[in-house]
Amino acid sequence: MSDDARRELVDLSTARETVDELAVGTGAESVPLSEARGRTLAEPVRAGVDVPGFDRAAMDGYAVRAADTRGADEATPVALDVVAELQAGEAPERTVGAGEAVEIATGAVVPAGADAVVVVERTSRDADTVAVRDAVPPGENVLPAGADVAAGDLALSAGTRLTPRTVGLLSAVGAATVPVRDRPEVAVVSTGDELAPAEADLDHDRGEIHDVNTPALRAAVAAAGGEPVGFERVPDDRGALTDALSRAAERADLVLTSGSTSAGSADLLASLVAERADTELLVHGVDVQPGKPTVIGRIGDTPYVGLPGYPVSALSVFRVLVAPAVREASGTPATTMERRAELATRVRHDGGRHRLVPVGLVADGDGATLAYPVDKGSGATTSLAYADGVVTVPATTNYVPAGEGVTVELFDADERPPDLLAVGARDPAVGEAFAAVDRVRFLARGTQAARRWLDDGVPDVAVVTGDPPDGEVLAAWDREWGLAAGSDVDCDGLASLVDGATLVNAARGTGLREALDDALAAMGDDRDEPVRDSVDGVTAHGLDGPARRVRAGEADVAPALRATAEDLGLSFVTLGTQRVSVVVGAGRGDKPGVAALRAAAENGVGAARPGYERVDGT
Amino acid sequence: MSDDARRELVDLSTARETVDELAVGTGAESVPLSEARGRTLAEPVRAGVDVPGFDRAAMDGYAVRAADTRGADEATPVALDVVAELQAGEAPERTVGAGEAVEIATGAVVPAGADAVVVVERTSRDADTVAVRDAVPPGENVLPAGADVAAGDLALSAGTRLTPRTVGLLSAVGAATVPVRDRPEVAVVSTGDELAPAEADLDHDRGEIHDVNTPALRAAVAAAGGEPVGFERVPDDRGALTDALSRAAERADLVLTSGSTSAGSADLLASLVAERADTELLVHGVDVQPGKPTVIGRIGDTPYVGLPGYPVSALSVFRVLVAPAVREASGTPATTMERRAELATRVRHDGGRHRLVPVGLVADGDGATLAYPVDKGSGATTSLAYADGVVTVPATTNYVPAGEGVTVELFDADERPPDLLAVGARDPAVGEAFAAVDRVRFLARGTQAARRWLDDGVPDVAVVTGDPPDGEVLAAWDREWGLAAGSDVDCDGLASLVDGATLVNAARGTGLREALDDALAAMGDDRDEPVRDSVDGVTAHGLDGPARRVRAGEADVAPALRATAEDLGLSFVTLGTQRVSVVVGAGRGDKPGVAALRAAAENGVGAARPGYERVDGT
Repeated sequence: MSDDARRELVDLSTARETVDELAVGTGAESVPLSEARGRTLAEPVRAGVDVPGFDRAAMDGYAVRAADTRGADEATPVALDVVAELQAGEAPERTVGAGEAVEIATGAVVPAGADAVVVVERTSRDADTVAVRDAVPPGENVLPAGADVAAGDLALSAGTRLTPRTVGLLSAVGAATVPVRDRPEVAVVSTGDELAPAEADLDHDRGEIHDVNTPALRAAVAAAGGEPVGFERVPDDRGALTDALSRAAERADLVLTSGSTSAGSADLLASLVAERADTELLVHGVDVQPGKPTVIGRIGDTPYVGLPGYPVSALSVFRVLVAPAVREASGTPATTMERRAELATRVRHDGGRHRLVPVGLVADGDGATLAYPVDKGSGATTSLAYADGVVTVPATTNYVPAGEGVTVELFDADERPPDLLAVGARDPAVGEAFAAVDRVRFLARGTQAARRWLDDGVPDVAVVTGDPPDGEVLAAWDREWGLAAGSDVDCDGLASLVDGATLVNAARGTGLREALDDALAAMGDDRDEPVRDSVDGVTAHGLDGPARRVRAGEADVAPALRATAEDLGLSFVTLGTQRVSVVVGAGRGDKPGVAALRAAAENGVGAARPGYERVDGT
Repeated sequence: MSDDARRELVDLSTARETVDELAVGTGAESVPLSEARGRTLAEPVRAGVDVPGFDRAAMDGYAVRAADTRGADEATPVALDVVAELQAGEAPERTVGAGEAVEIATGAVVPAGADAVVVVERTSRDADTVAVRDAVPPGENVLPAGADVAAGDLALSAGTRLTPRTVGLLSAVGAATVPVRDRPEVAVVSTGDELAPAEADLDHDRGEIHDVNTPALRAAVAAAGGEPVGFERVPDDRGALTDALSRAAERADLVLTSGSTSAGSADLLASLVAERADTELLVHGVDVQPGKPTVIGRIGDTPYVGLPGYPVSALSVFRVLVAPAVREASGTPATTMERRAELATRVRHDGGRHRLVPVGLVADGDGATLAYPVDKGSGATTSLAYADGVVTVPATTNYVPAGEGVTVELFDADERPPDLLAVGARDPAVGEAFAAVDRVRFLARGTQAARRWLDDGVPDVAVVTGDPPDGEVLAAWDREWGLAAGSDVDCDGLASLVDGATLVNAARGTGLREALDDALAAMGDDRDEPVRDSVDGVTAHGLDGPARRVRAGEADVAPALRATAEDLGLSFVTLGTQRVSVVVGAGRGDKPGVAALRAAAENGVGAARPGYERVDGT
């Protein structure tokens, strides 16, 4: 592998062609009909039998010779002798002669001699005689043998995706097993010493994180019609990685890696190239953001794609490069679809690279669809989990203004944006109300962001602290806040800070931070350097994040709600109350999600809590 | 149950409300994250941990005190002592003091003391010293603990459908198992003495048919997010049916029946009402076609829907009445979608009932979508299998003209109409060519229908016998035809018919039938009554259907291709050759499906066959 090959980025379409040329899993298998739904026929299926296999009565009535009914009508019925009775599943015991009829049920064999069925409603029965009040032509109410499908007919062609309806047809023609395209087996190898499964307790001291890529990529493989196999998490050890990749390549139709942060996928493949003569590096680096450090190659005969380690990047690259190949192999149609939307806030970036911008969708008061960027950086799992699709921004575009019409490629056709989009400050009472309604997306961006988003007309509701902005206040609470302190700390309020107590502050832009800033400002100029350093220094995310650090012994005091301090068993010095309001976005009052939240709030959800008081009339 | 209740039809929306009120399966269960994709959260999931759980390096570089980098730039770098090196998954062994830096990898813990990371590209390393060429603010390239998701945050609300992205988020917050809505268990009880499974050999004498409804309904249940359970085929015996229904009601969340032709579902439920005090009949008959004989009720606490027996009716009613309830219970979004189309041929009916008309879709030469009715009657499985969606015609409309714009409700969002729509005469050489290409729908409606459909501008290609109509002839063959006769029959051609040999004719409108009619007409007036009766009498479907009846001893002679007669070991008297042409519809020559068929034909597919000659230049 030359240094040049290592550095040359290819564009997205070239990368896609390279993956297509790797021809991921193109086999077929035979499955029982009961497991065939959702699969795609690998070969045409011909009918093995006539359907129906006999001349079949299509209605309840009398099997007759059509010629015998000539001239019959209401006024002048024709009388026929009823010589037998036939149910579905019974073999006729005699033929129908001139002047004769056989009482017949839908689905039964039309007996020899008869060539039509008169429906029971056009007859009158009297003992062994039936009066027929209708003249029928030959073939009336008879489904002749082979009329639905004739033996030898092409029942379904190759490439047909099997649905309940086509499964029914396959059963009808006697196809008990059917040839379908294989689900390609895809091995997902996640690398990184820091990865732990979802069920593990994390060691934060050494920076353990729950493995996101393995479960997400396995789910993505299955969604594309592949079969995730033999995954493993391997440590950042070249020997272990090489072994894992070789084993995966022997077993699977496609090998994926992700997440090696210290030894990049490319380096890894390079080391394999050195060790195995049958390994190829085809692409190293794709001109797309996120997703640049993508590797495409082959380990022996097995296609290999090295995905970037960040979940957003890994899933984005999987979606645009790998999923189409897996779908093609398995015959799984793309479920993505496009929707036009209006960009709610501007998108800026440095340009120079084709960019996939994750956006959420929300319907405004007029039913128009707004797209809002949700990117919190590739390292954040919520950047994708709280998005509904992506907007593609070409390399040549640095700036897309708010209000611009954009095309959003939805992640899944069967996915709906949430019923309620909420943005703002964290609050346990409000959170309880949100938890009581279905299909909410709450973006905990803090109270300052909530005001900004509300101004931009994005959210259905915003959670703000302090004076609420204009708009319907759906519910409001006053919450008591102050300083929480460890049991061995002698805290007497703000003065403690001046006395040099260490502080973990709330993150910037949050309600607690605003409250503490305001209280300190009210103290006047006696905030000296140590206080300022402390106040502007260490911060923690989450409403109870600062207090939890105090409980963990990392600092003396932290701003907190009384409710939090009591929960955590910390001492608490009150500094005031803060209003927290759920404000409805302009024109969103009638949306079902907002109505559901209003109903929950009216039912008293989020009411009782230490230091909380519901504001009357909300 | 009163007679009135038995006769009063309810409209479709009332029937749907009745099913909704039955509240099919509303439970929840806990599943491992690896099985959660495609399920829907039954309860909100809160984050159990901060994500990340520590201040995390977002880039490779050096962890520093931001204050130490003040004023650093390309010209005046700041030199810091490199005191340690940190990989992801390693616990920092020391803090970062003033003037110090720690080499750090993406994903590693930012050590205490440091509050920013300088990216490696903005540094130069020399032994134990690093020159920093960039001034960074506090927090630069650090993802603080809880910044993605804070412990206690509502990660995902109830009602969220789980995708690869949300599965990733659930893993990130440590949700190893998740509460999801139950898949309702749906029992499918098919009744009928005539039903046999797909793998069985059929006894045509007693009118056995492969069971279509059971596999189709089970597939439909699964597609709607339900779990098909404990199906059985029970004979048309009241005691056996009652037992089966009682057992099904005890086990399942919903019981479906279909297909009792001799004892209707309503009668059956009536008998249950007589025997079980806890059984209710709520709806008996719905004002919709197909689907009128639908029954809705309750057996004990278990919802019950009795579907009509014909597959088209059963699946149509399932789709409009039952699937929404199963989807609602399981949280499976509807995958139906609507598409506008132009009706290719008129739709007529008697009116008086809300009607669901199955239609196929085909793109015309300009890319516009045409909808063509495919209904061959409720008894035919192909009426639904060869449709792509339905057009709803209200009870008040008797007639919709060709060319009218209609809204087609597609059966599945992930289903595409076939790439090639072909209509016309059956022919083995042409059939071989069709079988060589993917995603073909061939409607074997005979040569007369093919000419009519071609005139109406519907099919991409038509297969016609005799003189081809105007248009590109994609391929053509001359095929030798004549009379096939049993080994004990002395056949000397058409004269045999005059001599009283029994004939099984080809179905009306087919190429073989036309050829025989023409040959008989050419004989002149010596066709007397016996010949006419024979010629107009018994017919069989399928190109080799008549000959197969001769081989089965049901008649003396039949029109057949030489190829068929040789296949079946019958003697053959030649009567001529017939041209069979594949004609391209106007404007369809460039469609990919047509191109694929042309390529297959040019490759000689469908060439060698007894009595066949490929027509030059096609």
